[in-house]
Amino acid sequence: MSASPLRVTVWGENVHEQRDASVKEIYPDGMHAAIAAGITKNLGDDVVVRTATLQEPSHGLTEEVLAETDVLTWWGHAAHGEVADEVVDRVQQHVLSGMGLLVLHSGHFSKIFRRLMGTTCVLDWRSENDRELVWTVAPHHPITAGIPNPIVIPAQEMYGEYFDIPQPDELIFISSFSGGEVFRSGCAYRRGHGRVFYFSPGDQEYPVYHHPDVRRVLANAVRWAAPRTRGPVPDAPNAPRDWWVSELPAEAR
Amino acid sequence: MSASPLRVTVWGENVHEQRDASVKEIYPDGMHAAIAAGITKNLGDDVVVRTATLQEPSHGLTEEVLAETDVLTWWGHAAHGEVADEVVDRVQQHVLSGMGLLVLHSGHFSKIFRRLMGTTCVLDWRSENDRELVWTVAPHHPITAGIPNPIVIPAQEMYGEYFDIPQPDELIFISSFSGGEVFRSGCAYRRGHGRVFYFSPGDQEYPVYHHPDVRRVLANAVRWAAPRTRGPVPDAPNAPRDWWVSELPAEAR
Amino acid sequence: MSASPLRVTVWGENVHEQRDASVKEIYPDGMHAAIAAGITKNLGDDVVVRTATLQEPSHGLTEEVLAETDVLTWWGHAAHGEVADEVVDRVQQHVLSGMGLLVLHSGHFSKIFRRLMGTTCVLDWRSENDRELVWTVAPHHPITAGIPNPIVIPAQEMYGEYFDIPQPDELIFISSFSGGEVFRSGCAYRRGHGRVFYFSPGDQEYPVYHHPDVRRVLANAVRWAAPRTRGPVPDAPNAPRDWWVSELPAEAR
Amino acid sequence: MSASPLRVTVWGENVHEQRDASVKEIYPDGMHAAIAAGITKNLGDDVVVRTATLQEPSHGLTEEVLAETDVLTWWGHAAHGEVADEVVDRVQQHVLSGMGLLVLHSGHFSKIFRRLMGTTCVLDWRSENDRELVWTVAPHHPITAGIPNPIVIPAQEMYGEYFDIPQPDELIFISSFSGGEVFRSGCAYRRGHGRVFYFSPGDQEYPVYHHPDVRRVLANAVRWAAPRTRGPVPDAPNAPRDWWVSELPAEAR
Repeated sequence: MSASPLRVTVWGENVHEQRDASVKEIYPDGMHAAIAAGITKNLGDDVVVRTATLQEPSHGLTEEVLAETDVLTWWGHAAHGEVADEVVDRVQQHVLSGMGLLVLHSGHFSKIFRRLMGTTCVLDWRSENDRELVWTVAPHHPITAGIPNPIVIPAQEMYGEYFDIPQPDELIFISSFSGGEVFRSGCAYRRGHGRVFYFSPGDQEYPVYHHPDVRRVLANAVRWAAPRTRGPVPDAPNAPRDWWVSELPAEAR
Repeated sequence: MSASPLRVTVWGENVHEQRDASVKEIYPDGMHAAIAAGITKNLGDDVVVRTATLQEPSHGLTEEVLAETDVLTWWGHAAHGEVADEVVDRVQQHVLSGMGLLVLHSGHFSKIFRRLMGTTCVLDWRSENDRELVWTVAPHHPITAGIPNPIVIPAQEMYGEYFDIPQPDELIFISSFSGGEVFRSGCAYRRGHGRVFYFSPGDQEYPVYHHPDVRRVLANAVRWAAPRTRGPVPDAPNAPRDWWVSELPAEAR
Repeated sequence: MSASPLRVTVWGENVHEQRDASVKEIYPDGMHAAIAAGITKNLGDDVVVRTATLQEPSHGLTEEVLAETDVLTWWGHAAHGEVADEVVDRVQQHVLSGMGLLVLHSGHFSKIFRRLMGTTCVLDWRSENDRELVWTVAPHHPITAGIPNPIVIPAQEMYGEYFDIPQPDELIFISSFSGGEVFRSGCAYRRGHGRVFYFSPGDQEYPVYHHPDVRRVLANAVRWAAPRTRGPVPDAPNAPRDWWVSELPAEAR
Repeated sequence: MSASPLRVTVWGENVHEQRDASVKEIYPDGMHAAIAAGITKNLGDDVVVRTATLQEPSHGLTEEVLAETDVLTWWGHAAHGEVADEVVDRVQQHVLSGMGLLVLHSGHFSKIFRRLMGTTCVLDWRSENDRELVWTVAPHHPITAGIPNPIVIPAQEMYGEYFDIPQPDELIFISSFSGGEVFRSGCAYRRGHGRVFYFSPGDQEYPVYHHPDVRRVLANAVRWAAPRTRGPVPDAPNAPRDWWVSELPAEAR
């Protein structure tokens, strides 16, 4: 079971916020700060949230940080290529050993998400103030607890199908846009011992991470993605014959 | 493998067409005739199509008819309750033994679909001339071969989420409507030895079964649902120890 | 979220225990008592467990009992046909509205499981003291937390493939038997708002429900199946145009 | 639809056959030759099969060869690390654009399979002449057409769970071994426009690719994996508003 409180690391690319006045106005402390605030506001003392950014040494994602992270969130867009492969390797290993991962919006095209999916992860897009409606198709799922159906987002970038991903283990949300497009906007996967959730609302030009329902989704997803077990990356043992005999408990003999 | 040509039975409830002038105008020979014509037009000599309706003895679905049917299509709406349970039992047994089944539009609420799904199969709806766009999310799938993305349907009844079905084995299409709703409009399932495809476009008040792209989907789905094997319904044998030894072929000893 | 403590109802057919000396010796208070004890032993004050049996009025499963049940477990074998259809209807409605359901061993052939699956649910079988090994294929799943891989069961009835069920939403366990057969022995499904888990170890002629690892699986599954939401069965509303506008929170305008 | 006849490229690592007398005795012309012969024997004039090996320039997998390949099969074990990354990139791109891929036995640990899965793909193993039984859990699937249940393989390397892969889109076969282990031995995936099938029987020290049932599985899988569509790798277009209007066919206006 996970440590208590849950240890969340919010990773932000932190490029648009530094160079684009329009983004800085919406997110004066960076998008990562808004994402972190939304999680903290919903989960309170059940979480300890820290942030890390591209510009820090090792992008702030050292072995030590990841070993102390139950759930990592990932937002990137302008600088996917600048993320060091060794950091991507490290994050992947931690996911496979049980760390939860939330991939947000244009993080669909990050190295880590493409690595975990095995596909191109391309999609259609248009940034022209579409109204997005996020519909729940899994009302039984913990990620949708307390979420209105639909979430109404007055203005957002459009992300549309075909989205080139493996079929999700669980499809949670489907969005429509005022231009008529649809998108699988909430997709849950299991990879190794880890859980991965992709959630698409959240372009840098719109105040989506201030939206209370979006924040609630992120908080629910943190809880869902928290590891049940956390151990080494799966290994490939040579198994001697009848080794499993030792698993028989005394009470069952 | 299936017989050649494929033997298709198009089942129609045939109630609206008899009593509603608006429907009769769109479908003067019945909706089943339009569905059958669309399949024949696309598959030509590869199929032999017949129709059956609620009003016939045994609703036209005797043991003999079903035994000679590779794929059955089902459209119903106003008279789900009038379908005899023994016919539903018979259709279910044939699906589980390998017959393909296409469930169309308001067939979502038919006895046979609810029987095969185990859930309520309810959905949201509104019949007010919504424009429907049918988006492909499975471009690799034979049902989407040659289908434009999206299919544009100028006017249709809206069907919206939450649609209370088991998660599809393969999600093929997602629709959006001009009112902003979304719907999992193409869902593929395997049940026993049989294949089931639900496809939602097709309300009686709109000429959807004359739409060439919709007709193409139905034809593709007939091919996909055709049985690979057709045998008895799965049975529950008592298995003697080491019975499988007889499966070892001489060449492999 | 579920009530705390979780309210569990263990349903037992209670026929073999009354008529077969061999079963009575293993389960002097009934199999349901052993199942209930295993859950209580593992979950302690986090659960309140009661039992119900076929012989009680309404089989002990009145509307009142089900309304106060978070998770129902179901063991039956000799008397599936004696379970009243109205009770099956009632249990199905509660599952679809969010109640968890654990179906155990020969419960695979119960009316309620076949109703929820839509298939025959047949399988191969042999009751000749096979050794069963229950292997984990989903180490990330809460049902497998703390469970050895494999669980070693010295003697059990063999259940083998082909098991005629829909592909599970999550496959959790696969068993092998000393006769060489395999079986999908732990299968998780979502139906409506409810969660369903089928777990096959547990024949009446073997002391499987005294096995500490099997008991741990049942306890984990109770936690997993407990409802996230519990409400009415999904309904089919007529949705007026733009009704969703009211879902936009004031903070997001 | 695929070209007719289907163009199959059988890729072999071709290392064990050159250096290990025990393997050379079983496969004097190389394992790839035996795999190719099995496909040809079953599919006859419906296929044209060629082989390619690690030792050829570009491992025999140039852009030209892959562009003319409908289905590629992959067997490797001793030299995964020697496969050039640029060839892996090229194969991945062709799979995502529609080429079928069959990954065989220890190919589970190849660069291309791990790339497409995103996980470690590790498993348990033991090479001590276990008897393997390959059970069908998807009798409706074209890959299992005409295959006995189970396939009996007198001696094989044991591959056991936990196998660290994403949950298959379709689980087709489960194997048991005389040592009691189980393994998901036939797993079907869709990635981009392509289909991927992993099939585990086939260690170099055993004559498994001479087994007639194993050969039939390979042939069925070639047919199944053949592309429905073959085009460019999915791309990420900027979508102008209302671009889809042009998809409305004249007949549907």
